[in-house]
Amino acid sequence: MITKLVSTQFDFQKKLSSLLEWENVSNSSVTKTVSDIITNIRSNGDSALIDYTNKFDNVNASSMKDLTIELPRLKQAFDILDEKQKSALSTAANRIRLYHEKQKQSTWSYTEDDGTVLGQKITSLDCVGLYVPGGKAVYPSSVLMNAIPAKVAGVKALIMVVPTPNAISNSLILAAAHISGITQVFTIGGAQAIASLAYGTQTIPKVDKIVGPGNIYVATAKRAVFGQVGIDMIAGPSEILIICDGKTNPDWIAMDLFSQAEHDENSQSLLLSPDSNFINQVESSIKKLLPTMSRKNIIKTALKNRGALIHTKDMNEAISLSNQIAPEHLELSIEHPKAVLDNIKHAGAIFMGRHTCESLGDYCAGPNHVLPTSGTARFSSPLGVYDFQKKSSLIMVSNQGANTLGKITVTLANGEGLQAHAQSARYRITQ
Amino acid sequence: MITKLVSTQFDFQKKLSSLLEWENVSNSSVTKTVSDIITNIRSNGDSALIDYTNKFDNVNASSMKDLTIELPRLKQAFDILDEKQKSALSTAANRIRLYHEKQKQSTWSYTEDDGTVLGQKITSLDCVGLYVPGGKAVYPSSVLMNAIPAKVAGVKALIMVVPTPNAISNSLILAAAHISGITQVFTIGGAQAIASLAYGTQTIPKVDKIVGPGNIYVATAKRAVFGQVGIDMIAGPSEILIICDGKTNPDWIAMDLFSQAEHDENSQSLLLSPDSNFINQVESSIKKLLPTMSRKNIIKTALKNRGALIHTKDMNEAISLSNQIAPEHLELSIEHPKAVLDNIKHAGAIFMGRHTCESLGDYCAGPNHVLPTSGTARFSSPLGVYDFQKKSSLIMVSNQGANTLGKITVTLANGEGLQAHAQSARYRITQ
Repeated sequence: MITKLVSTQFDFQKKLSSLLEWENVSNSSVTKTVSDIITNIRSNGDSALIDYTNKFDNVNASSMKDLTIELPRLKQAFDILDEKQKSALSTAANRIRLYHEKQKQSTWSYTEDDGTVLGQKITSLDCVGLYVPGGKAVYPSSVLMNAIPAKVAGVKALIMVVPTPNAISNSLILAAAHISGITQVFTIGGAQAIASLAYGTQTIPKVDKIVGPGNIYVATAKRAVFGQVGIDMIAGPSEILIICDGKTNPDWIAMDLFSQAEHDENSQSLLLSPDSNFINQVESSIKKLLPTMSRKNIIKTALKNRGALIHTKDMNEAISLSNQIAPEHLELSIEHPKAVLDNIKHAGAIFMGRHTCESLGDYCAGPNHVLPTSGTARFSSPLGVYDFQKKSSLIMVSNQGANTLGKITVTLANGEGLQAHAQSARYRITQ
Repeated sequence: MITKLVSTQFDFQKKLSSLLEWENVSNSSVTKTVSDIITNIRSNGDSALIDYTNKFDNVNASSMKDLTIELPRLKQAFDILDEKQKSALSTAANRIRLYHEKQKQSTWSYTEDDGTVLGQKITSLDCVGLYVPGGKAVYPSSVLMNAIPAKVAGVKALIMVVPTPNAISNSLILAAAHISGITQVFTIGGAQAIASLAYGTQTIPKVDKIVGPGNIYVATAKRAVFGQVGIDMIAGPSEILIICDGKTNPDWIAMDLFSQAEHDENSQSLLLSPDSNFINQVESSIKKLLPTMSRKNIIKTALKNRGALIHTKDMNEAISLSNQIAPEHLELSIEHPKAVLDNIKHAGAIFMGRHTCESLGDYCAGPNHVLPTSGTARFSSPLGVYDFQKKSSLIMVSNQGANTLGKITVTLANGEGLQAHAQSARYRITQ
């Protein structure tokens, strides 16, 4: 059902590594296909895009107009939602906006004694592309989480692309696009959508950055256009790591593990606890609750292949293992989570206390649910407003400053054999 | 000598596009070589690394000890510098440190009325790899610019790799490594160095992020390991765009154009001015000064192939063209640069006023000289402390908060068909 490990067993680290192992592998066939699609879109623009879309999404478009959703249709999709959904979506959007407002950066500068001014100017990106997957995993909440930080940053043009396989569109996605302030929508997907956003076509605007999740073709295309445009991280399967002191209701913990496992068969759910008796209780809860779940097959596969209940020596070891794993979601289901926070080094999001289940953060707590996976929390951050703002250095050297800095520059530029660098500075030295 | 364009000529935009065109192309032979090297390093670690290094760098290493530079040798390299160089390097390092200290981010949080706490925790990366090219472009200043922001961010382990073709090491690089607080140095380079840092070998530590410039093999390897580790941008050739009102000494402007052109044959130097007479004066200065330059052949090729003097209608058009180009370095050689700053949208670094030549910023003004090239300033930022810090979201929901947020979560999770998400939240609802 689910692997049980004890941290003191001799092969523990080896078993743990093998559980954690994950690579987003693009085999050479995928890479070749994607590379051909990008070349074709760059050469033939709209017409290639229409051809690919008709073929891959099984639709029958004759012009780009057929692959465009006008803004009034988004509003309409929102208007016809029932009141409860409307209110839930609006409240979630407001809370996400409020949290992300705190991430806005401001221009700063300082003046040195000789009058030289140094600083950093903040501006927003002009135009962003948001990829929304079609098919089985349809998450309107992802539209909010990707679009709202961009809007808060001040991005003017926000282009959403979402494939509509067999011409079926999802009205919750469109309603979420409405409430997030998306400015254009095209029903395209796959590598052809990524290529179109990166290079522009007659109809699709060339964007500055592409964000949002997708399948292996989308991920491979994003990697290929990286540099031409900015991209967010290439996400692996979703993960949760729960540290529990053994005093939370085991049914709650089992359900929290399920909530990650139900995403897809590769999702990872880990529990770390120093209480072996509690681990057995959670195992019983899993057995009891699994048959009641509509996505029980997915959950079962995920728990079996990639899940684990891990008995640690103590809380300190649990935290140290968590830092090693650098989980996307870390749930601290313990009495005094604030007391251990300083020891947590690597995690996408930290859910503190028994009442803070991960799903609250997925939808409406406020922080972003686009988080670094597969251990990348060691070096990357949740999606945020900072992903849609950029910095320019400001340097305004006074006449006096040009004398002192000029002399240093001459010495260092000569050391690097860059004569023009030195001479350019020397011209500005007046004393 | 250098292209002259007038913004009103009918084919101006086409000519400009063709001048700006640049792609970091990895042909399939480079991609294949890099992919083989990565596979081999992952399988065979140190022994593969030693083999590649002996072969590509023409050295004769028998163990990793031969490819390691101990810290005392860095100090020694610094100690034997002449006083002027020592002082210039130290002052530059101090100024860079001072500026980057202002970029440090802090953890924040706020408490909502119902007691729910939301926030963002800042931590530094644990371990960073810094690639320093060997060969013709040897820039100790780049060691300062890459290493100091990492140190300021709080990175504990800073691993420098620098190839030493024919076993020749550069003592200025080692001195810069000393003053920047590098913690380990290996004399390796190319794709084999990138692969070793990304995956670790018996001797080379696995890092969290790799920064620093390199040739096409290094760039291709960085792109390939992106996701396994973080990377900085993949840099194109360096560029400068100067906007001048026609009242700066034309020799100064010519030398500023040279200072970019002398980097390599692909560097780009552009001047935009509404004063056609001034453009002719700068052209004369170029002709006069070029023969005096030691790197005149490189400068000549760069100016001929990729440089331009552009006559614009007015200052507004010059600024608007600059925003379109999104230059790495923007020099505002005008009377009142602060007055136009609000209109500048995209640039890596902005050099303001006639006395602020770019080379001051390259070495010692304080801001970073690692800047977005090839128009990527549209979506990316100078290298900074923020590249070596990361964020974790903080969510601590109160019992009361779990009631309100729980109900929203149940509605939205049901809309996405995620039953466990809903149930996990429902368990926490107490009223």
